[in-house]
Amino acid sequence: MDTLNVMIHAPTPEALHRAQANTRNLLKLEPDANIELVVNGPAAAVAVGIVDAEILGRLVLCQNSLDKQNLTAQDGARVVPAAVQHLARQQQQGWGYIRA
Amino acid sequence: MDTLNVMIHAPTPEALHRAQANTRNLLKLEPDANIELVVNGPAAAVAVGIVDAEILGRLVLCQNSLDKQNLTAQDGARVVPAAVQHLARQQQQGWGYIRA
Amino acid sequence: MDTLNVMIHAPTPEALHRAQANTRNLLKLEPDANIELVVNGPAAAVAVGIVDAEILGRLVLCQNSLDKQNLTAQDGARVVPAAVQHLARQQQQGWGYIRA
Repeated sequence: MDTLNVMIHAPTPEALHRAQANTRNLLKLEPDANIELVVNGPAAAVAVGIVDAEILGRLVLCQNSLDKQNLTAQDGARVVPAAVQHLARQQQQGWGYIRA
Repeated sequence: MDTLNVMIHAPTPEALHRAQANTRNLLKLEPDANIELVVNGPAAAVAVGIVDAEILGRLVLCQNSLDKQNLTAQDGARVVPAAVQHLARQQQQGWGYIRA
Repeated sequence: MDTLNVMIHAPTPEALHRAQANTRNLLKLEPDANIELVVNGPAAAVAVGIVDAEILGRLVLCQNSLDKQNLTAQDGARVVPAAVQHLARQQQQGWGYIRA
């Protein structure tokens, strides 16, 4: 099968909790999958505390959401100007989308 | 870059709140993007009160949801028979999808 | 029009409630649509109690979610190893995605 490219989107703390479980479950079945865990909104405040390397290396944080809540991304997390732009542009490139 | 065509879907009041912020953030970065804010479920009761022209001109309301809650769409909002049909058909036409 | 292939994803009880209404509304307008109601997370505990044939025949349950909550799928429901894998793979095959 083709390699999977999929974004898992989490805008709320509950969704972020589910998204981390989703990511781990998917990696067990598809270890080569390219997974991005894209976080914006209220979930950003929880996401900046993530230290687990399996998740952290796949984390994509929204600069708008960080700014609005006076948050700073941790080392190792990727930051994009706006999650919504990233989610839309990546879909245009063929990435899948799941809202946790 | 190609023009973005993206639907932002809001079925709950909380999602509608985020969707409006998403829309404004995306327009700052991509002023030419075609954005639809597609509303159904409990969010419809809040959406019919939206007056901000930047949002109103992009609002797509679900007739099923309006009927079920005895709501009437405001002038300027577009109404489709079923949000779910619209969301699925537009994806077939290449539109991106984000669930706020 | 082409036949619609669309997955409606429900990870929470509230989303599952909306997803069932979405499914019924879509079938009224598009009786030939291929619809999957894909359930994971906390919604699984509610989904295993569904008996309505119109919904049950379209239900796709996540084995990971069933295991984690010590649940057993009812007869007639389809079970996949991981909802997240199913959602991503089907999108690669051209299926639409809606998060209820």
